Amino acid sequence: MSLIEALNWRYATKKMNGIAVPQEKVDQIVAAAHLAPTSSGLQPFKVIVVTNQELKEKIAAIAWGQQQIIDCSHLLVFAAWDNYTEENIRAVFAHANAERNLPAATTADYENTLIANYTNKTAEENFNHAAKQAYIGFGVALAEAALLKVDATPMEGFDASKLDELLNLKSLHLRSTTLMPLGYREENGDWLLNLKKVRTPLTEFVIELK
Amino acid sequence: MSLIEALNWRYATKKMNGIAVPQEKVDQIVAAAHLAPTSSGLQPFKVIVVTNQELKEKIAAIAWGQQQIIDCSHLLVFAAWDNYTEENIRAVFAHANAERNLPAATTADYENTLIANYTNKTAEENFNHAAKQAYIGFGVALAEAALLKVDATPMEGFDASKLDELLNLKSLHLRSTTLMPLGYREENGDWLLNLKKVRTPLTEFVIELK
Repeated sequence: MSLIEALNWRYATKKMNGIAVPQEKVDQIVAAAHLAPTSSGLQPFKVIVVTNQELKEKIAAIAWGQQQIIDCSHLLVFAAWDNYTEENIRAVFAHANAERNLPAATTADYENTLIANYTNKTAEENFNHAAKQAYIGFGVALAEAALLKVDATPMEGFDASKLDELLNLKSLHLRSTTLMPLGYREENGDWLLNLKKVRTPLTEFVIELK
Repeated sequence: MSLIEALNWRYATKKMNGIAVPQEKVDQIVAAAHLAPTSSGLQPFKVIVVTNQELKEKIAAIAWGQQQIIDCSHLLVFAAWDNYTEENIRAVFAHANAERNLPAATTADYENTLIANYTNKTAEENFNHAAKQAYIGFGVALAEAALLKVDATPMEGFDASKLDELLNLKSLHLRSTTLMPLGYREENGDWLLNLKKVRTPLTEFVIELK
């Protein structure tokens, strides 16, 4: 199946059937997010995989009761750095240089420029930037799920502050950005399944400057 | 090639060889962005495809002179709505209802809720939200490019205000968010090509809550 076919197959699943996604497929979906590109390669986000049923129920309660959170087998929470710090940035480059057998000096100027730029901004601006990087990974993970014929529901509809508190994300210097329940569509109980997929007309979506 | 293999193959190409990407492949990459999910299906962004050489040179000049913008055959500019407005939101639902042969009343309550929520926020908050949706499409388009073995360089490093002015985006109620030059890697002149791809250790990237 091509990615275009997979994207036409997928939809924001409204009702899942409770069958568990094999761990191997979940691992590939997470791997796609892990391999996604991010600004300067900083990867300022993490993926939290929730399988604990009690915890999923608590999360549903602060997400408008969306049943997919309860019925999915794996709930992915994408959480971005709450700020860019000198410590975080240096750690990324130290790891990359070690992996590449390069001396620290190789990236010193670049690191210093990044640190100067980010630490000159507010935590809120930096979180917003980090969140955007998480959205790239979120898109790539959704693409992988569709290719594996795993259903997913991209979600922003939840109380992020309450979720951060529930998952104790502040202590990890993270803030939640999006949710992605993984499971399989309930063919007979999903009002969205049989509605035509609609997108902005392509002629309005694309502007060509030749 | 699986998406995981494609993501391992791709990298932020630093030097392109000037060979043009076939229009058919560009269309598929744009189609992937077009099919990507967005919050409430509003698709608050557009993709501008720049092939005009003079224009690409002007864009490179406000993007740190990054040569890929000049050497690529197609430069994609992802531009998000500068705000959510009642008019924009109503237009999306009118189109979707028409495509689905549904009466306007079907979505009236949902539309009114969205309009009330968005118009209660600042243009800056709404642009940031729209930009995040564009980043989902950006991620999905990058995935499709990699699957088609088309090289791409995800870029945030440009003067967005100047680009908005150059492309007259304000009149379209858009603001630029990211760039994606499409082309093919120059095997012999790219310093990044032979460096090991490095990501945060998977054990740090994933948090499991069982």
